[in-house]
Amino acid sequence: MSTNQFRTEKDFLGAKEVPVNAYYGIQTLRAVENFPITGHSMDVELIRSISLVKKAAALTNMNIKRLQPKHAEAIVQAADEVYEGKYDDQFIVDSIQGGAGTSFNMNANEVIANRAIEVLGGNKGDYTVLSPNSHVNMAQSTNDVLPTAIRISVLTLMDKLLSAMEELQQGFVAKAEQFDHVIKMGRTHLQDGVPIRLGQEFAAYSRVLKRDILRITRTRSHLYEVNMGATAVGTGLNADPRYISEVVEKLATFTGFPLVNAEDLVDATQNTDVLTEVSASLKVCMINMSKIANDLRLLASGPKTGINEISLPPRQPGSSIMPGKVNPVMCEVVNQVAFQVIGNDHTINLASQAGQLELNVMQPVLVFNLLQSLRIMRQAFTVFKKYCLDDLEANEDVCRENVEKSVGVITALNPHLGYEIVSRIARQAIEGDRSVRELCLLHDVLTEEELNVILDPHEMTNPGIAGAHLLEDEYQLKMSNKADYTIKK
Amino acid sequence: MSTNQFRTEKDFLGAKEVPVNAYYGIQTLRAVENFPITGHSMDVELIRSISLVKKAAALTNMNIKRLQPKHAEAIVQAADEVYEGKYDDQFIVDSIQGGAGTSFNMNANEVIANRAIEVLGGNKGDYTVLSPNSHVNMAQSTNDVLPTAIRISVLTLMDKLLSAMEELQQGFVAKAEQFDHVIKMGRTHLQDGVPIRLGQEFAAYSRVLKRDILRITRTRSHLYEVNMGATAVGTGLNADPRYISEVVEKLATFTGFPLVNAEDLVDATQNTDVLTEVSASLKVCMINMSKIANDLRLLASGPKTGINEISLPPRQPGSSIMPGKVNPVMCEVVNQVAFQVIGNDHTINLASQAGQLELNVMQPVLVFNLLQSLRIMRQAFTVFKKYCLDDLEANEDVCRENVEKSVGVITALNPHLGYEIVSRIARQAIEGDRSVRELCLLHDVLTEEELNVILDPHEMTNPGIAGAHLLEDEYQLKMSNKADYTIKK
Amino acid sequence: MSTNQFRTEKDFLGAKEVPVNAYYGIQTLRAVENFPITGHSMDVELIRSISLVKKAAALTNMNIKRLQPKHAEAIVQAADEVYEGKYDDQFIVDSIQGGAGTSFNMNANEVIANRAIEVLGGNKGDYTVLSPNSHVNMAQSTNDVLPTAIRISVLTLMDKLLSAMEELQQGFVAKAEQFDHVIKMGRTHLQDGVPIRLGQEFAAYSRVLKRDILRITRTRSHLYEVNMGATAVGTGLNADPRYISEVVEKLATFTGFPLVNAEDLVDATQNTDVLTEVSASLKVCMINMSKIANDLRLLASGPKTGINEISLPPRQPGSSIMPGKVNPVMCEVVNQVAFQVIGNDHTINLASQAGQLELNVMQPVLVFNLLQSLRIMRQAFTVFKKYCLDDLEANEDVCRENVEKSVGVITALNPHLGYEIVSRIARQAIEGDRSVRELCLLHDVLTEEELNVILDPHEMTNPGIAGAHLLEDEYQLKMSNKADYTIKK
Amino acid sequence: MSTNQFRTEKDFLGAKEVPVNAYYGIQTLRAVENFPITGHSMDVELIRSISLVKKAAALTNMNIKRLQPKHAEAIVQAADEVYEGKYDDQFIVDSIQGGAGTSFNMNANEVIANRAIEVLGGNKGDYTVLSPNSHVNMAQSTNDVLPTAIRISVLTLMDKLLSAMEELQQGFVAKAEQFDHVIKMGRTHLQDGVPIRLGQEFAAYSRVLKRDILRITRTRSHLYEVNMGATAVGTGLNADPRYISEVVEKLATFTGFPLVNAEDLVDATQNTDVLTEVSASLKVCMINMSKIANDLRLLASGPKTGINEISLPPRQPGSSIMPGKVNPVMCEVVNQVAFQVIGNDHTINLASQAGQLELNVMQPVLVFNLLQSLRIMRQAFTVFKKYCLDDLEANEDVCRENVEKSVGVITALNPHLGYEIVSRIARQAIEGDRSVRELCLLHDVLTEEELNVILDPHEMTNPGIAGAHLLEDEYQLKMSNKADYTIKK
Repeated sequence: MSTNQFRTEKDFLGAKEVPVNAYYGIQTLRAVENFPITGHSMDVELIRSISLVKKAAALTNMNIKRLQPKHAEAIVQAADEVYEGKYDDQFIVDSIQGGAGTSFNMNANEVIANRAIEVLGGNKGDYTVLSPNSHVNMAQSTNDVLPTAIRISVLTLMDKLLSAMEELQQGFVAKAEQFDHVIKMGRTHLQDGVPIRLGQEFAAYSRVLKRDILRITRTRSHLYEVNMGATAVGTGLNADPRYISEVVEKLATFTGFPLVNAEDLVDATQNTDVLTEVSASLKVCMINMSKIANDLRLLASGPKTGINEISLPPRQPGSSIMPGKVNPVMCEVVNQVAFQVIGNDHTINLASQAGQLELNVMQPVLVFNLLQSLRIMRQAFTVFKKYCLDDLEANEDVCRENVEKSVGVITALNPHLGYEIVSRIARQAIEGDRSVRELCLLHDVLTEEELNVILDPHEMTNPGIAGAHLLEDEYQLKMSNKADYTIKK
Repeated sequence: MSTNQFRTEKDFLGAKEVPVNAYYGIQTLRAVENFPITGHSMDVELIRSISLVKKAAALTNMNIKRLQPKHAEAIVQAADEVYEGKYDDQFIVDSIQGGAGTSFNMNANEVIANRAIEVLGGNKGDYTVLSPNSHVNMAQSTNDVLPTAIRISVLTLMDKLLSAMEELQQGFVAKAEQFDHVIKMGRTHLQDGVPIRLGQEFAAYSRVLKRDILRITRTRSHLYEVNMGATAVGTGLNADPRYISEVVEKLATFTGFPLVNAEDLVDATQNTDVLTEVSASLKVCMINMSKIANDLRLLASGPKTGINEISLPPRQPGSSIMPGKVNPVMCEVVNQVAFQVIGNDHTINLASQAGQLELNVMQPVLVFNLLQSLRIMRQAFTVFKKYCLDDLEANEDVCRENVEKSVGVITALNPHLGYEIVSRIARQAIEGDRSVRELCLLHDVLTEEELNVILDPHEMTNPGIAGAHLLEDEYQLKMSNKADYTIKK
Repeated sequence: MSTNQFRTEKDFLGAKEVPVNAYYGIQTLRAVENFPITGHSMDVELIRSISLVKKAAALTNMNIKRLQPKHAEAIVQAADEVYEGKYDDQFIVDSIQGGAGTSFNMNANEVIANRAIEVLGGNKGDYTVLSPNSHVNMAQSTNDVLPTAIRISVLTLMDKLLSAMEELQQGFVAKAEQFDHVIKMGRTHLQDGVPIRLGQEFAAYSRVLKRDILRITRTRSHLYEVNMGATAVGTGLNADPRYISEVVEKLATFTGFPLVNAEDLVDATQNTDVLTEVSASLKVCMINMSKIANDLRLLASGPKTGINEISLPPRQPGSSIMPGKVNPVMCEVVNQVAFQVIGNDHTINLASQAGQLELNVMQPVLVFNLLQSLRIMRQAFTVFKKYCLDDLEANEDVCRENVEKSVGVITALNPHLGYEIVSRIARQAIEGDRSVRELCLLHDVLTEEELNVILDPHEMTNPGIAGAHLLEDEYQLKMSNKADYTIKK
Repeated sequence: MSTNQFRTEKDFLGAKEVPVNAYYGIQTLRAVENFPITGHSMDVELIRSISLVKKAAALTNMNIKRLQPKHAEAIVQAADEVYEGKYDDQFIVDSIQGGAGTSFNMNANEVIANRAIEVLGGNKGDYTVLSPNSHVNMAQSTNDVLPTAIRISVLTLMDKLLSAMEELQQGFVAKAEQFDHVIKMGRTHLQDGVPIRLGQEFAAYSRVLKRDILRITRTRSHLYEVNMGATAVGTGLNADPRYISEVVEKLATFTGFPLVNAEDLVDATQNTDVLTEVSASLKVCMINMSKIANDLRLLASGPKTGINEISLPPRQPGSSIMPGKVNPVMCEVVNQVAFQVIGNDHTINLASQAGQLELNVMQPVLVFNLLQSLRIMRQAFTVFKKYCLDDLEANEDVCRENVEKSVGVITALNPHLGYEIVSRIARQAIEGDRSVRELCLLHDVLTEEELNVILDPHEMTNPGIAGAHLLEDEYQLKMSNKADYTIKK
């Protein structure tokens, strides 16, 4: 290569050759060399967020007369261009990096500095024009820049996630209404239970998701507290008090989030609990969604040899060998996203616990996992709703037949006959071919009219004692009318 | 054994010999046979809670005229005695049990029934007097009884935990005040950073704990919603609507918690997310506490060859072989409790995800772990505060000496000289024997008077630019006065 | 209490009153005060193992003339009595304790010392007769004693576990043979697949369990390496080289395990990876067992509205409200034990990772969880085999009917007609009422004779192409005989 | 768009427009639409592995006269080109996908078919020339193809990982030799312990890594068993027995791995335990590596206010604000990779446990995480060795001074004076300014000559009793010569 393809940059550890057209500089290059780990560079959302941080800092430093207007303006222009995605390819440090994100911060400082230098008419790499550390990073430390950028990124992606969740939740509500009339067997322990309406099941799904929306939303309040101005260890060394408040006001304006200065900057710099809290809420949500996906796969099992009470819309041929097979692929992807998010939460817990003294240096792996969780959840929810939930259908005939052949309706007899006698009738029904109704008549424990009232399945899906009016005024009498715990074989 | 030491009980699966003095019955015995797993019986808090549930149900059933007063009164007396702990030894089913807690519920039903039978003048085992299922369990299912009892138990133990947390949090606040004047080196990456006050570190510990208190407290709102009246699958089959509301009102009175009927009983019966949510909040707390324990162990390391900036009160000889050694045992126990709680959370997640359709049958292992977490956290916090935090002392001399010998104070020069020049001075200081002050004078970059102002460590622990008045009105000029990025060797 | 109910003991931190009849001493009491965490004292298996260690050390120290015979003999007698369980109630330190197990070691040292003092005619607490540290703990440190005792305990409980696993594995083999003739539908994605024999499914269960036995067994080799003689940090300070080898030989004799000196005592003292390895193998096993338990619950679902291809033996009434219901409780307990073991593994990982420099002080919580995992797995496997697997039955009629009504057999047509055409026939069969056979005849793609050969379900459960002889010598021709990817509606 | 930019493809669910130049087809497109989850397509190693599977199958099918030579040859050429990476950009399905990998298998089938069609002179999409399912996937199912390809990929990446581990392990051995003479304080509980040699610490690191190499290597035996020929559910439906054995022989030849047919194809199809086993071994390794990284960060802490017994090579400026700061970034990246791998293991466990009946449909997320773990471990180990371990240096002066000022050497006095007396001396030394030596002389418990022998630190780093010859023939006498448990103040 000819020498003019590279420029030489120096830092206190020595010099390195930087591609002459690169906006990044020596510190970025060192990081690339040190951390060839995942092959994935930092999330673009983080790049956007850090550009806002740099812009807010530059404007504030200008306002408090620490930074010359021409420098500030060049930095702002560069930061705006970074925000627009023009230099995404210049952000080349790996998502998993040592150094607590310093390399990412320096990558941003270098890209913005070099672009600003260009704006100012200088040559990239000539940091006498404008310095990545002294100007772009003025009054900042990675230790306040990165946590702030992380919070903005998390809030941004969380907004999108919550929006997808609201839609999904509404999707369940719609299905709950659509299926409100479909009576089917409820199952506990995978064993026949008592009747329930399919709509009630979908309403329950919508309710748990509603709680998840609340849980995730509730984590936002802590995220709004950012530690800009904390600098290295939270003491605010080298940060002017006017700067500390103004930079956050600007960020609030830029992002539209009600960001405020953290009450205790030392605390806000050393702890990652508010991120762990977010991940925990995502994890709880995916535990629930995985259960829902499992339920749907189970209810859709078959079609000929399974439960088959619902049908999922076919999305793709299910097998490369079994012709005509269609699988519940959209549910399966929800399960897998759940596993990924739960595993990510584990990584986040480990990273969070590994903080030491004034800083948690493991934030890069933490944010790598957290942003992935936020992204894949949103994606999964969107396609799950669109390609699975919306066109999911009830197989009403199957549901009805299951209720009819099941013994579970017998539970409604308890208030009339007592658990012990009813148990014996139930075992006879389960083990033999006669229905509950037939057996009751055979044993002469209830009349046909009484049975018509008590064994109405729809009645059973709402609170109350079926045939309550048939009960004599005292429970015990009715039961004791019947032959002393024995029934006919 | 003589035959009169046993009575024979029957259920629809057959008969079993029950010790004649036992208050438990056949279903309990079946469970004992089936589940000899952990050797630990159910948590006593659950026993107390279920007794309240049974009492509330009996009274309500009496009020709505489903249960004869004499039966109800006998049940209430028996339940009260269970609450007082008189029959703890009769609760013999294992904490890990199949059947979704039915065995525990039946254990309670049988103990209460047999004690009530005694009260009514009958013989234990004579369920024609009063039946465990038909009377004690009237209008109930394990599927509403157990989740309700779990919530009451969790709330009760959480109250105690939160109280211990408040005290611990205040303990950190007290130390923050006590140590507010102790200037020491802050460390990031375990490397010398910039000065901080020991009180600031303890204030940060108090702040994160305060958030944990909030996070745990926030989970209570969901816990207040109980599913009594849901019966088997949440539809309320066999539960009179009057019963559904009244039983919960009674429970609220008995417990003092603002319990309410869950809005959607199907949802509340099938989902365990509100418990998983509790565990997640405990987990986040213990991640933080583990970090704090690590910090304290690190700062107390030595005494001769470690950091030794603080001293923990000696609690026990530390070694069976190394005489005079004292170890940070109270911190270590906090770490271990953290590991246990985090592992428990994992078990809880797995159990929670394993719910299927109308029920989560894995609740026994879930509650076993959750109650353990609540208990051991409280215990650990109490002894940690009392035996470690309260008498923890600062080694002020060591703290001061560390600040003096460190190079980290150099950061305060940045606004005056720029990062690049300061970096070079820093490396000289780190690699050689001359202090930052000496080198600045040697290189003639700042005067002694200026250095006195800028390098004041106490100043560095508060926001602001040390020696801001020394700066000329424009940052860049000051730096460019100095020799073009080179300093003397 | 009168003063003569207590004796006063001293250590370098001060004095404490010890109950006069107690065999434990001051250091045990300090630990009880410091660590009121779980309420569970150390596992009895550890008590037995540490007694063997103390005995082996005393005999060896006598042999190399470091300990007087009378002292050694008294220690041996006391250790033997501890082994027999006579003083289990004197081991009162909590399972979760700070101090890396020093408190447990000192508990053992004190109990053995005081019993030995009695044997020697002295008064408990008079350590001039015989000292817990200088004599019972001679040439030992908690840091070699505890890891050694842990290994012996783990090996002992693992033996019992493996024995239960062998029996369970044989149980699956027996079922595989019993069900070898039962043809049923195989399912993938819970969707109808192709025929399989029930015996093949149980054979697969036996195979994965066999690998688990191998995986667990494979961890033993590392467990045989013990670090006795390592003393405090693995350097063997204060341990005579003759002692180091002889004490392990004695332990090998006492335990029957082929114990050897670890090659590198520093390594063996600081690392817990061999225990983490054991837990990992247990975890993998329980993942598999949980899947098997899930399968059985699924296949046994119903009985009327589920898959119902097998029946599990009824073990207890399944519901306090739904009469006659029987649940798969033995499978559910296996699931829950799996969740517990997987959670325990998580705790163990965290503890293992928390080792620092020469020691892992988190071993108490690690071994607490590991021994629990070993115990509950054995218990669960034993009852699962006895109460569930052995009497599990195939519902052959249901299995057969499912094969008959399923469309999955159609896969056997692929080699004859090609995937594309067969797919179209399959969808027609799934969506309509006509069987695969009927449709093939309708579309005139195969003759009745050909179909008889190709659609034989038993044939399909073994490798091979059904009706291979019907294929012309070149696959493509047969398919292209058929109408160009279109079939009749 | 003009119509000739797209071709129309059909399957049994309908038709789709495929870009006319695309090698993938309709089923790939469906999957892309369904699964826009992570944005990461399948690992290239899987693409290479599946191409080998397709090639082996085609050749074998030709040999047993099921596939025409011209078809087989075209498939082989296409598969070879895929192996060479020519069509990596045609593999566009997401790493997390529903359908158990069918979409990935179909992506491969379609790319290979379309390329083979080109080779045969046809037009892409004209599957009458050659069919993705009937020809490329002949006698195969995703359910045997994917597990086989996964095993090959895992073995390939594991080879590379093990090679990096061997080098790293040798790196530790080299450091152990280099530092064998450096005496330093050993620490337990982060408290001063007894002397050890730095080389012993690095030897211990090398030993645990050696066990990890063994543990990971040991998982290979199970990986060699592949389930090609199992087809859909392991029964080998549509797979000729000659094919089943020959296809695996071919794969063994192509890969160089000693692949064999799994003994039980049903088992091998439904279970993922052998992959979980691999992940567990990786996890154990990273727990160890994280501990090592923590140790190194701790020993290198400072430089002025930490332990500073070793120096890590500076790799990059450590702070954007603190000039001259250098952080242990290479250790930190190892920690983070550990957290990622442990989290990945968690995801893998969840996926593995979610298998149902004949198949584990969660394999895509499982393999996504497993291959990532293998890759990032290798990368981290390589740079950690090169950029951190190889040039790591001992600060011998600091090490020596620490030994001299520590009290820990006092442990060597135990055999001479007994633990109790020595404890008292130790506390005096810790709390005051006098050294152990001075105090011994002051208390007249040992002579200067005796102390010279006993307190030699180097001696203490090897097994044995320092000054054993000074002991009288009976231990107890020596101690009892000294004043009855009291020492001078």
